Amino acid sequence: MRIVQKFGGTSVGSIERIQATAKIIKGELEQGNEIAVVVSAMSGETNRLLHLANNINDNPPMREVDALVATGEQVTAALLAIELDALGVSAYSFSGAQAGFKTEGCHTKARIKDVQGDHLIKHMERGEVPVVTGFQGVDAKGDVTTLGRGGSDTSAVALAIAVKADSCDIYTDVDGIYTTDPRIEPNARKMDSISYEEMLEFASLGAKVLQTRSVELGMRYNMPIHLRSSFDLVEGTRVSKEDSNMERAEISGVAHNRDEAKVTIKGIPDQPGIAAAVFGPVAAADINVDVIVQNISEDGQTDLTFTVPRNDYQATMDLLNTLCTKMNAREVTGDNTVAKISIIGVGMRSHTGVAKKMFDVLAQENINIQMITTSEIKVTVVLEEKYIEVAVRALHQAFNLAQD
Amino acid sequence: MRIVQKFGGTSVGSIERIQATAKIIKGELEQGNEIAVVVSAMSGETNRLLHLANNINDNPPMREVDALVATGEQVTAALLAIELDALGVSAYSFSGAQAGFKTEGCHTKARIKDVQGDHLIKHMERGEVPVVTGFQGVDAKGDVTTLGRGGSDTSAVALAIAVKADSCDIYTDVDGIYTTDPRIEPNARKMDSISYEEMLEFASLGAKVLQTRSVELGMRYNMPIHLRSSFDLVEGTRVSKEDSNMERAEISGVAHNRDEAKVTIKGIPDQPGIAAAVFGPVAAADINVDVIVQNISEDGQTDLTFTVPRNDYQATMDLLNTLCTKMNAREVTGDNTVAKISIIGVGMRSHTGVAKKMFDVLAQENINIQMITTSEIKVTVVLEEKYIEVAVRALHQAFNLAQD
Repeated sequence: MRIVQKFGGTSVGSIERIQATAKIIKGELEQGNEIAVVVSAMSGETNRLLHLANNINDNPPMREVDALVATGEQVTAALLAIELDALGVSAYSFSGAQAGFKTEGCHTKARIKDVQGDHLIKHMERGEVPVVTGFQGVDAKGDVTTLGRGGSDTSAVALAIAVKADSCDIYTDVDGIYTTDPRIEPNARKMDSISYEEMLEFASLGAKVLQTRSVELGMRYNMPIHLRSSFDLVEGTRVSKEDSNMERAEISGVAHNRDEAKVTIKGIPDQPGIAAAVFGPVAAADINVDVIVQNISEDGQTDLTFTVPRNDYQATMDLLNTLCTKMNAREVTGDNTVAKISIIGVGMRSHTGVAKKMFDVLAQENINIQMITTSEIKVTVVLEEKYIEVAVRALHQAFNLAQD
Repeated sequence: MRIVQKFGGTSVGSIERIQATAKIIKGELEQGNEIAVVVSAMSGETNRLLHLANNINDNPPMREVDALVATGEQVTAALLAIELDALGVSAYSFSGAQAGFKTEGCHTKARIKDVQGDHLIKHMERGEVPVVTGFQGVDAKGDVTTLGRGGSDTSAVALAIAVKADSCDIYTDVDGIYTTDPRIEPNARKMDSISYEEMLEFASLGAKVLQTRSVELGMRYNMPIHLRSSFDLVEGTRVSKEDSNMERAEISGVAHNRDEAKVTIKGIPDQPGIAAAVFGPVAAADINVDVIVQNISEDGQTDLTFTVPRNDYQATMDLLNTLCTKMNAREVTGDNTVAKISIIGVGMRSHTGVAKKMFDVLAQENINIQMITTSEIKVTVVLEEKYIEVAVRALHQAFNLAQD
């Protein structure tokens, strides 16, 4: 097998962790695999460098911030190559530029345009390990660029595609994706496999184990991603194309998010352009809107309800109160004690009545549903935050998620 | 004027020093000069990185050591560019690779082969400041290389040549070259100018203010070097081509070195190959031999005396005692309380009797000369260490060095 292994900041956060990581790499090599590695900066290093920059300039030039921050991964890559050498493994570190990561777009949030992996394949075929810096590349001008926070996952998947790897193994501090949060439901089960689409839904619901862009990239090029722990070398969760032959359960997991607030603007004159009039200023204030519900019009008026991150609650309320006057609406109400719960699964495509079953389960627990939104493989409801544990456990049990 | 300014580790050793350095650069720009800058790593950073490497691998691969250590200057260059931006100066950091430093030879002690400075000239002509990492480049394979300790001076002179600068200003923690050590002779005078040849002699005698390679490079391309302090912006010492029109004093300065020991192997059978038989093993033991005197042969035997760094005295004595038996010589003697004093100056070429005057001065002070060696612009004698201050002061006065 040809494998790209990616190690995040905690996996290379100290000399001891770098040594442990080198042993994992050597272990995979000894099983006859060809290996390339992508590393992040040692945990804390990126923040240390950013702090130095912000210390001397409130608004440092982004080109220089990229040049500065990119040294973090370069240090890790060289140290890991040096440790691999100490274990008798031939290893070569490569910066983003050296590895052939061409990017486009602006500094500090560049996008990968192309990766030239042929020279790395030659090393791998000789049993040598290229150790590549994640999170960075070089633009058409030859300037160092970075991909934005979490970009190393995307680097790893892009490299795996470029070197035609069989798998991209992302090592992190969790050992996989669970059917639900084990802190709430002790019977939560680690999933062996999950589809890209499901992973994207889990990620968008706050499962911060994989960067969304990396999953999208994997999906586009059909690169299997193996999410696993660097602290415990058990099988993790494999993210791959949906297997159409397999018998799927109704749903794969239950996700939740407490970081929610709900706002309603009532009695808006119902006329074309009201959504734009409301969401334009909200977007301009850099507030992410999630679930949106517009009531059926009554007496030429309508209500608009939506959720925002709880941190943005007060700013959203202030903004809506201003808009309320301007738009001649009736009133603005809000609630920052709501939460969101979702059931996710590609099985919904073939099983009917999944949404109805969810609503029944919540009704049996006397939990009122405030908002509903659905996608092809997800049903999300907004409810009072205090019911979140009850709802998670009830749904986990009703959909039989503890059994494989 | 087009100027390349080089700032060493102490000049960029903290955020405060980086801020002071940025002010110096801005000051030169405001006088209408075009500026490019070469920086070292923050003082201590290179050692910190090397320590990390040696911590995990007794014999780390040199390619990786270079990749690791090169991040030190990259951090400084980006931070200095960020601080210059805060002062309203457009600045762009460049790694050795980006700046166009091509090197050859082996890792950790590469040599500069070529610098492609055209893109930097364009920045300078627009009033922008390229901030280039010293000490590093890239080899034909695209691997990062470093030039060895003190290599940043050489980077600066090479860059000055590449961008066709009028001067290469090396900022350091001393403000110039003195006629002799001011701690011994309070009347020591800072020299306004000195020739490349003289600078090389001073450097070889332990004036560690400029790397020898940088002076040789400046001499070859006739690039004036201005050695000055970043703590006190007075004129320093300008190192340039010998001005043949100028009336030169007999000598320019008096240098000394206490770090000397003298060893003698007596009664060696005088036959071809004895020097090789002695100095071969000494060189193999990595001991630097300095002054050598071989006595005139007597009764088919000769004596060989030479100086070594004082730290190597015992090792040299042990080695010679072994050789003594093997070569059938009579005995080995040594003295680790000697010192070396030199008078230096291109004026010697036109003034006769300079060496004799030196010997006369020392004789008047009743100082016995143990060894003598001369070059075209230098006379060196070895004497008892306890006389070093007396000798320095007497020579400084006799040659009128206090007056300009």
